[in-house]
Amino acid sequence: MKQKYIIIVAGGKGTRMGAEIPKQFLILNDKPVLIHTIESFFNYDKTIKIILVLPEEQQNYWNELCAKFDFKINHQIVSGGETRFHSVKNGLDTITEKDVIIGIHDGVRPLVSKDVIGRCFDKAAEKGVAFPVIPVVETLRKKTEKGSITVNRADYCLVQTPQVFNSEIIKKAYQQEFSDTFTDDVSVVESLSEYSVYEVEGARENIKITTPVDLIIAESIINIKMK
Amino acid sequence: MKQKYIIIVAGGKGTRMGAEIPKQFLILNDKPVLIHTIESFFNYDKTIKIILVLPEEQQNYWNELCAKFDFKINHQIVSGGETRFHSVKNGLDTITEKDVIIGIHDGVRPLVSKDVIGRCFDKAAEKGVAFPVIPVVETLRKKTEKGSITVNRADYCLVQTPQVFNSEIIKKAYQQEFSDTFTDDVSVVESLSEYSVYEVEGARENIKITTPVDLIIAESIINIKMK
Repeated sequence: MKQKYIIIVAGGKGTRMGAEIPKQFLILNDKPVLIHTIESFFNYDKTIKIILVLPEEQQNYWNELCAKFDFKINHQIVSGGETRFHSVKNGLDTITEKDVIIGIHDGVRPLVSKDVIGRCFDKAAEKGVAFPVIPVVETLRKKTEKGSITVNRADYCLVQTPQVFNSEIIKKAYQQEFSDTFTDDVSVVESLSEYSVYEVEGARENIKITTPVDLIIAESIINIKMK
Repeated sequence: MKQKYIIIVAGGKGTRMGAEIPKQFLILNDKPVLIHTIESFFNYDKTIKIILVLPEEQQNYWNELCAKFDFKINHQIVSGGETRFHSVKNGLDTITEKDVIIGIHDGVRPLVSKDVIGRCFDKAAEKGVAFPVIPVVETLRKKTEKGSITVNRADYCLVQTPQVFNSEIIKKAYQQEFSDTFTDDVSVVESLSEYSVYEVEGARENIKITTPVDLIIAESIINIKMK
């Protein structure tokens, strides 16, 4: 298979957590969220090249954490940009190797499994663009001018990361001007209207840590897995 | 305020849990899920009338559980029907009192808070129909004939229970023939096209226990609250 890269985007400033510490650095069980995230990809493939995008002002702190937790997995640190789009773009710009497979992952999704990562990279290697989705399990309503209406939840799915791409596709997509309709990396590719995108099965446990409750939920999930 | 009723629907046969025991009977911390659920409503209002809809074949087991856990909150037991719709209808049929406020709640949502319950009952008393919703926090995609597309998640919300109604409205709605487009009780009312329905703020913690992971998550949430 082609060389794999993973760009881990950790731009969080921590404001939504009600904590001073950015959420990617919060301690989940015995180590920071971001160490879990990086380990998930290293455990999937020890030859994957890891690029961590981090706000410049957090890089010293991250280096201290790596020392404190004796964290030795090799990774390149790149400075974040003004928005997530700009952060991803900075990460992509450091990849000069041609014809590789590039995943992009939220730093605050530490529980992503080997299976989910593998499905995304395998499908992207075959089709060019792949990303994990999970079904909507609750009743879903859509706002309309006259109030909201129930829609058929089976017609919808929720999108997770890693979103994985052939390098030429994702680099071309990120040549576009920034738009605030870009909610994730797949939507950046879709705005080119040139490529088909492919869903693979995600996992409910692959949660994004955005609130204090999420951190507790993540701890429970890890504890079940260790049993 | 008018007399309040809550119909708690616990029809689960347990097949999705990978366990033999129906999920409403699983032990959450120190007692069955269903006991937590009933206590949530009793703690909200000690004068609320509680109707529990349970498959006939589970009623003996439930009575044993009540004895075992010394559970004394007064509630009426009604037999479940073929589908959730029929179960709710059976519950509604036992309410003969006029001009009351009736809530309908999933038996497997034990973590519903007093605040959420209160918002639903207060709004329903004022407007006739109220239900709790939470925002969609992940990227949402909609299936189309040409594959899926990203939609604006801010236009959507996820629906929880309790869904609460003026008794005349919900009883009239349940006079309709069953349709498989009825995904929740609000959608039954909406198919009459006569009444406006009102959203109130739900809570992420008000989860529906449908998988083994959910049970662990629920335990963590309870443990945080007790701290």
